Amino acid sequence: MNTVEIIKKKREGEKLTPEELKFMIHNYSEGNIPDYQISSFLMAVYFRGMDKEETANLTDLMLHSGKTFDFDDIKGKKVDKHSTGGVGDKTSLIIAPVAAAAGVYVPMISGRGLGHTGGTLDKLESIPGFRTGLTFTECGNLLEKSGMFLAGQTAELVPADRKLYALRDVTGTIESIPLITGSIMSKKLAEGIDGLVLDVKTGTGAFMKEYDRSTELAESLTATAKAFGKEVIAMITDMNQPLGKNIGNWLEVEESLRILRGETVSGLSDLSLKLAGAMIWLGGKAESQEEGEEISKEIIKSGKAFDKFLEISKEQGGDISFLKDPGKFQAAKYAEEVFSEEEGWLAGTDNYKIGMAALELGAGRKVKEDLIDPTAGIIFYPEIGDKIDKNKPIAKLFTNKKETIERVKTVLKEALVLEKAETKAPPLIYKTIS
Amino acid sequence: MNTVEIIKKKREGEKLTPEELKFMIHNYSEGNIPDYQISSFLMAVYFRGMDKEETANLTDLMLHSGKTFDFDDIKGKKVDKHSTGGVGDKTSLIIAPVAAAAGVYVPMISGRGLGHTGGTLDKLESIPGFRTGLTFTECGNLLEKSGMFLAGQTAELVPADRKLYALRDVTGTIESIPLITGSIMSKKLAEGIDGLVLDVKTGTGAFMKEYDRSTELAESLTATAKAFGKEVIAMITDMNQPLGKNIGNWLEVEESLRILRGETVSGLSDLSLKLAGAMIWLGGKAESQEEGEEISKEIIKSGKAFDKFLEISKEQGGDISFLKDPGKFQAAKYAEEVFSEEEGWLAGTDNYKIGMAALELGAGRKVKEDLIDPTAGIIFYPEIGDKIDKNKPIAKLFTNKKETIERVKTVLKEALVLEKAETKAPPLIYKTIS
Repeated sequence: MNTVEIIKKKREGEKLTPEELKFMIHNYSEGNIPDYQISSFLMAVYFRGMDKEETANLTDLMLHSGKTFDFDDIKGKKVDKHSTGGVGDKTSLIIAPVAAAAGVYVPMISGRGLGHTGGTLDKLESIPGFRTGLTFTECGNLLEKSGMFLAGQTAELVPADRKLYALRDVTGTIESIPLITGSIMSKKLAEGIDGLVLDVKTGTGAFMKEYDRSTELAESLTATAKAFGKEVIAMITDMNQPLGKNIGNWLEVEESLRILRGETVSGLSDLSLKLAGAMIWLGGKAESQEEGEEISKEIIKSGKAFDKFLEISKEQGGDISFLKDPGKFQAAKYAEEVFSEEEGWLAGTDNYKIGMAALELGAGRKVKEDLIDPTAGIIFYPEIGDKIDKNKPIAKLFTNKKETIERVKTVLKEALVLEKAETKAPPLIYKTIS
Repeated sequence: MNTVEIIKKKREGEKLTPEELKFMIHNYSEGNIPDYQISSFLMAVYFRGMDKEETANLTDLMLHSGKTFDFDDIKGKKVDKHSTGGVGDKTSLIIAPVAAAAGVYVPMISGRGLGHTGGTLDKLESIPGFRTGLTFTECGNLLEKSGMFLAGQTAELVPADRKLYALRDVTGTIESIPLITGSIMSKKLAEGIDGLVLDVKTGTGAFMKEYDRSTELAESLTATAKAFGKEVIAMITDMNQPLGKNIGNWLEVEESLRILRGETVSGLSDLSLKLAGAMIWLGGKAESQEEGEEISKEIIKSGKAFDKFLEISKEQGGDISFLKDPGKFQAAKYAEEVFSEEEGWLAGTDNYKIGMAALELGAGRKVKEDLIDPTAGIIFYPEIGDKIDKNKPIAKLFTNKKETIERVKTVLKEALVLEKAETKAPPLIYKTIS
């Protein structure tokens, strides 16, 4: 087999055999095929795509490039959730303890913030002392003992994905459905799960802005999960505005804590219940997603979900006094309200800009080496469909970087799409695929 | 400017600005952009193409990546010919001396054999002593003194093309019209020419097998030449069978010598006259291509073309006793005739296979480091339209590698496309673009 011939075959739109894909991925992992051949191959895949079988084969090869979890000793179903990323998306912090408190095992491996979107690991690490860098053994012990863990990816897990992702990032080949599928699913399958709930975002703050592409991704992800015999449910959910009010690491923990304590936040509460309900259903602890939702509500009401979050935070080194009394957390030096200069009905937001504004304030990283400021972020008040009034703030921003305030205010004002006539809120969930 | 953004812009099918192209080519030449980013960029160009302006800009950037010839001191037009490569294509050896003898300056820089096709440099070097590795100064002196030179590319000439071509070769990005155009035209323009005759091959032995793609390439090449203010004429010519009878380095020199001495070889003679006629016309030594053809005939008849070939060969170190008496040249150890097992009319040939058969016998290189056997090759007798008779040889092969003989015989037999009914010869020239 010959690298150039395989590149050309894909370039001509032909289907690759399992052996050809294996040749490419194995030899790349082993350092026998140079980056420059893989990057032209990835661009050919970008243009020509891969069918379901090729995508499953790719996923399998990536999955087996490293160690995988094996939780067969733990009786009971293991279910995780994956979101394609968004602005203010803190559902993991809510639904993982809900599902675990309902008796579902949740082996959750998350990522860091990427561009305009936040990352679960960064949010968790804003809790003083919270450790996400767990060993294989620690993960297993926690799952057995507490029914869940909240960890970062280790070096042993899916090394081929790390290598490929780094290359895609600098070669303009991120936005390919089969490559995204391989990357997501290899990591999720490595967790040793039985079921997976997928939250595929669509809209201005999503990686896949167009609805059709989001659907295509959701279908590719579910097909691949099924090819591996996993139970799966995918929801295509709205990302045309922030999810919940709070954006920024500690701000999102704080909002999650309120939900876990029984408070309701428009959009965020509903979506969290749907996702947790699906996890409980796939985890065999409910007969249907709807029943799973009811169980979730009860678990939150009973305080069990909040307690589970305290338990796992403590197990992972977190100082839970901050969770019990969020007001204790040091505030950002600067807190300023932002007002709109126009009036009208909110028809939409440039949610990408809102995410980038939070990053600018210190909530995200411009380059990998940047430190995150846990206190920085935005509370974004209005929702699509609301009337915007010049006298009421549209947002409050928090930062320790004074020089960013004016620019961010301008960005936030520009992010509003206003109309003269009354507007309607978008659906929270567009479609469910299973 | 940002490499990834430029890759993505091309990936999305947008036109790149001159500044963006400059950013890519300059920084790649300087080693500031790694191979893996350029290779994904090249694959995006493969899929999205480039318009005329982008192609001209690319060509210009490659052209100015190194030194260029400046023959402004030499009064009179400088004209070269470029062929996209074929099997048995030895017209350069014939038409360069014809045009030079007609008073046109011919600064000819050629390449080596590539895959199934031969290279002018390899053919010339089969003449004992002939040196193609000329310095810049030698080229200028020869052009002034003898009206021509036959040289190989130097390291100073178009270094960006060498770097890009090597990368394209291993990343499945050779077959892109704008990239081929940039590669060919930057090298030709570096010769300091006023006019260019293009021989774009089409058919089973051509790099561009399909007629439409060959036309597309011819149009891209002529448009680019015009963008640089050059006079240009492109002919799309048949490569469904070898050009002339002889394939292999010394065999082709020997056949060229016969043409230069006034002999006629079907196809080869006609095409050589057309190409030389076009060079003489573009060189300002005839009022039309037709007149240029008449002049070419006279020059051959007068012996001036043969004498010019002797002159330049001597100047470049060649032992011209072999040119005066080709029979002196040492023959290959093995010479065997090949017979067809079927009868019928020849409707076509797999000319790629014929070219690869010659390579197999020693006339070409499998890997860059292979040595060429100047005596190896094939005389292929029939032409499309001929009746094939089992008792008459279809070919004679020459080699020093006994072990290749039987396989090559089989390949040559398989390369025949036979039909039961009478067949017609294809046109020699399909179309002329100027």
